[in-house]
Amino acid sequence: MRRLSLNQKTTNSWSVAQAVDGCVRAGIESIGLWREPVHDAGVAKSAALVRDAGLRVSSLCRGGFITAIGGEERRRALDDNRRAIDEAAELGASCLVMVVGGLPEGDRDLPGARARVAGGIAELVPHALERGIQLALEPMHPLYCADRGVLSTLGQALDIAEQHPASAVGVVVDTFHVWWDPDVERQIARAAGRISSFQVCDWITPFPGDALLSRGMMGDGHIDFRRLRRLVEDAGYDGDIEVEIFNADVWAADPDGVVALMKQRYADHVL
Amino acid sequence: MRRLSLNQKTTNSWSVAQAVDGCVRAGIESIGLWREPVHDAGVAKSAALVRDAGLRVSSLCRGGFITAIGGEERRRALDDNRRAIDEAAELGASCLVMVVGGLPEGDRDLPGARARVAGGIAELVPHALERGIQLALEPMHPLYCADRGVLSTLGQALDIAEQHPASAVGVVVDTFHVWWDPDVERQIARAAGRISSFQVCDWITPFPGDALLSRGMMGDGHIDFRRLRRLVEDAGYDGDIEVEIFNADVWAADPDGVVALMKQRYADHVL
Repeated sequence: MRRLSLNQKTTNSWSVAQAVDGCVRAGIESIGLWREPVHDAGVAKSAALVRDAGLRVSSLCRGGFITAIGGEERRRALDDNRRAIDEAAELGASCLVMVVGGLPEGDRDLPGARARVAGGIAELVPHALERGIQLALEPMHPLYCADRGVLSTLGQALDIAEQHPASAVGVVVDTFHVWWDPDVERQIARAAGRISSFQVCDWITPFPGDALLSRGMMGDGHIDFRRLRRLVEDAGYDGDIEVEIFNADVWAADPDGVVALMKQRYADHVL
Repeated sequence: MRRLSLNQKTTNSWSVAQAVDGCVRAGIESIGLWREPVHDAGVAKSAALVRDAGLRVSSLCRGGFITAIGGEERRRALDDNRRAIDEAAELGASCLVMVVGGLPEGDRDLPGARARVAGGIAELVPHALERGIQLALEPMHPLYCADRGVLSTLGQALDIAEQHPASAVGVVVDTFHVWWDPDVERQIARAAGRISSFQVCDWITPFPGDALLSRGMMGDGHIDFRRLRRLVEDAGYDGDIEVEIFNADVWAADPDGVVALMKQRYADHVL
């Protein structure tokens, strides 16, 4: 239970201060932060809140969105990622989660977008190394390939990560994104030493109407969490296990109740 | 244009007779049939309709759903697939498309379900060989892994197909299901001699509310059809190109208008 981390998205209505208090009330020792609420509270203030509460910051979500074809848009995206790296360092986060972005408007060249991701990561690595922040490449469910993340498999994320020191570039293993992958066993083993973050939430059916809010509480869906937890542990990962749930019903519920349910389901389905 | 085939699902409101007439009116030489409307018309009657109209039957959809854990349910599923093979033979179809099925109710053992698919296919191969019908394994978008098809990649479908003669087991390359796959180039090349069917429709965003009706007309979404067509042709495939669209708006439109639009978009985006 000590490795359980509350990703702030799971209690989406809470500010940083509220989420920190909620973790303390529930005896949760780690939190995954998001940049927007961190900006609302102020980065220095957010850092002080988690530090004073004695919480670990298991991740900062999120950098990325680096598939723009060039010029000003690409430069702005890379600059914003350098700021995100700085924020992650100031917050004492273990890593910066990278959601790399989808196809640019009107563009259908998927191999091209993927090549630009590899190039963009290479451009960010020096700054990440300087600040001691690991860029955590998040392969996303192929459902999001067009509009959120052109990295679709762990193998593909590792192909990029392995071009850089493990201290600079790792990967996120998120059960929702990787559970279906027939190659997941081999790729998690390959990720040994590069697993930046292990995130859990469930794949539920029928598929909710909003693709961005389609994640379920552990136990409500089809994922065998213990199998995946054992695979990441066999690969040497002993860091925090973050619960990140985008779901309209979960967001509408009382956040303290969500945290209590999350602890129960974590014990029942993940541990 | 001679390779264009109308999959009956694209004009979902049409009976077999109406779809055959619609193809003839539009100068389309090939049709992909579905079992339910074929049963409504009668198998022999449907066979006569397509034969008398001089149409090719590019596929029969669909067999599959063979992930049941055992006993009576599994036996019934295999028997139904043998009937589907018989129907495909009677219709003169090039192949029987296999949608293998999702996880059984309450079951989370994905590797187990996948192993049962391999076993079920092996059981069906003798009957397929006897009737001269190729089982066309359809890898499905990982979106459907839980509830429709646990075969999620072309590579995985080929791992099963390659255990059998190519005349008995091939694969479907459906752009909607495979376009995101970072390994698609290598796997289509590997599929040379085993491509049973090439199906096209688009991946559209925002993702429609109903996951089963989320396919778009070519050109309305993000898929580079020409790239995928060239890959299947480089692998030696010169068969029909079927347009299969599950979409509420397409289904609500006048079917003759849908067929006309399909021809136009096929010329503009696929050829």
